[in-house]
Amino acid sequence: MAALISVEHLLRGDRRTVARAISLIENGSSGADEILSAIYPHTGKAYRIGITGPPGAGKSTLTNKLAQWYRKQNIRIGIIAVDPTSPFTGGALLGDRVRMTDVELDSGVFIRSMASRGSLGGLSKKTREAADVLDAGGMDIILLETVGVGQSELDIAGAADTTVVVLVPESGDGIQAMKAGLMEIADFFVLNKADRPGADQAVMSIKMILGFRPHDAISWMPDVLKTVATEGKGIQEIGDLIARHRLHLQQTGSLMIRRRKRMKDRIEEIVQDQLKIEFWSAERSQQLLREIDAVMNFQRTPYQVAKELLNTL
Amino acid sequence: MAALISVEHLLRGDRRTVARAISLIENGSSGADEILSAIYPHTGKAYRIGITGPPGAGKSTLTNKLAQWYRKQNIRIGIIAVDPTSPFTGGALLGDRVRMTDVELDSGVFIRSMASRGSLGGLSKKTREAADVLDAGGMDIILLETVGVGQSELDIAGAADTTVVVLVPESGDGIQAMKAGLMEIADFFVLNKADRPGADQAVMSIKMILGFRPHDAISWMPDVLKTVATEGKGIQEIGDLIARHRLHLQQTGSLMIRRRKRMKDRIEEIVQDQLKIEFWSAERSQQLLREIDAVMNFQRTPYQVAKELLNTL
Repeated sequence: MAALISVEHLLRGDRRTVARAISLIENGSSGADEILSAIYPHTGKAYRIGITGPPGAGKSTLTNKLAQWYRKQNIRIGIIAVDPTSPFTGGALLGDRVRMTDVELDSGVFIRSMASRGSLGGLSKKTREAADVLDAGGMDIILLETVGVGQSELDIAGAADTTVVVLVPESGDGIQAMKAGLMEIADFFVLNKADRPGADQAVMSIKMILGFRPHDAISWMPDVLKTVATEGKGIQEIGDLIARHRLHLQQTGSLMIRRRKRMKDRIEEIVQDQLKIEFWSAERSQQLLREIDAVMNFQRTPYQVAKELLNTL
Repeated sequence: MAALISVEHLLRGDRRTVARAISLIENGSSGADEILSAIYPHTGKAYRIGITGPPGAGKSTLTNKLAQWYRKQNIRIGIIAVDPTSPFTGGALLGDRVRMTDVELDSGVFIRSMASRGSLGGLSKKTREAADVLDAGGMDIILLETVGVGQSELDIAGAADTTVVVLVPESGDGIQAMKAGLMEIADFFVLNKADRPGADQAVMSIKMILGFRPHDAISWMPDVLKTVATEGKGIQEIGDLIARHRLHLQQTGSLMIRRRKRMKDRIEEIVQDQLKIEFWSAERSQQLLREIDAVMNFQRTPYQVAKELLNTL
């Protein structure tokens, strides 16, 4: 399969080749690592922006408007939308087609949905790798969009240079947002649908909570922007604040530190995935299946069985 | 540390001992596995119910009311509430104290919050283990409550016999719920805050989506219940439906199949955690740190470094 993908074409930004490479990654095909190794030296130029928040916050609309704003400046945009998959259709519910109506087909935009069915754990790895493909393919900015409560928001933060958390007035009292761990990863907040009642109150409560966050004079202080994405209101402000955050990261050296940390996590993840694959040989998987009955009958404990399996190494 | 925990006391349901054992698990202390092995033969009696849904759906209130309902029937209840942790306070935001005001201190109820800070991956393991402690400690029913979007809902489904997904009219058009993957794990739905506008519409759209789900005449068909948890409305109906689902699982043999599958996942998880711990020796961690600069300078690829690390095995 890998032979079908021309690295040369990919580096020229050929859309079909880029799409095919991402499919290989998404499917966990064997050729993926080879391609990723080949393109790796050509990555690192694109700036990666994570956009996350609760369901219904308007992330897709906001992502599309932001992409349009960048396009007007002739900046090449890649979008990776991580859609938790429907268990019934087996595919992402809001696929590429829906998105295409907003951001027109334009050779400077590449949009891709990735499904997360049953493999949320591996999603950060795949998202990063798909971003690498877009990066090597010549995109200047990569927008990574996902629903964020729980693990997925950490995945996004682990793949992005700047992370934007989108909330709405209904997202509640800010405490819920804190509970969801979104505070931890936000480089700044966007309060979308800010024409709805309760917007100013929501902004205030987010700011109050941010005030508790330990910070000093020189470090970056997350702000809250109000937007109405459907009307394009506040999009330029988001673009400007991203640019300001990027500059901050570059000037303080934080960008390199963040990327270095991400690389460490990434290598660890590659190693651990491979360890898992190598460990669970057909033989060991069968040994596990044989032993489960004894565990279910309380003749053995799961810890004993795990230890025996580990001893076969 | 482990010596301080008397398995005998734990099996008698001594509250302090139970609390201490769960703390050991939560902190990942070394003595935890020993205790879990010792109590394992005394588990399997409690019925485990997962309660999940988006932030603000009223899960805590509903859990407390359901616990009160069980208590009236003299059923012993354990509650494990998984709170994503605040990054600022370092502890669960809504801790045991808040919860205690509703369900009174009563020797038949044991309530415990577990924080998920930075370790969402390991949460399913810890939740299951804490449930084992409550099970061995003599609880009849264990309620596992967590915010569910992304990985955490899969964790809950992986630890529970029956999984209840709580939504509210504002949870939106049902499509968002499907997107969030909640449909996949729900044994039934609760539409809480059903006195709010849009409740009937929300119920209808959930039912419509459920209609698409492949099912046959004998298999369980998830239903939707309406509740107003703050007023105690619909709580009995939840309790009854849980009982009906439990009976269904027992009569069809599905309970054993579910528990067997869970045990398989659990043993795999124990093995993989241990593999990871054993692999990342001080030496290998340092090798990784040494190599990162070369990767950042594009002299090497992350895949090469990962491969070399794996070759040291």
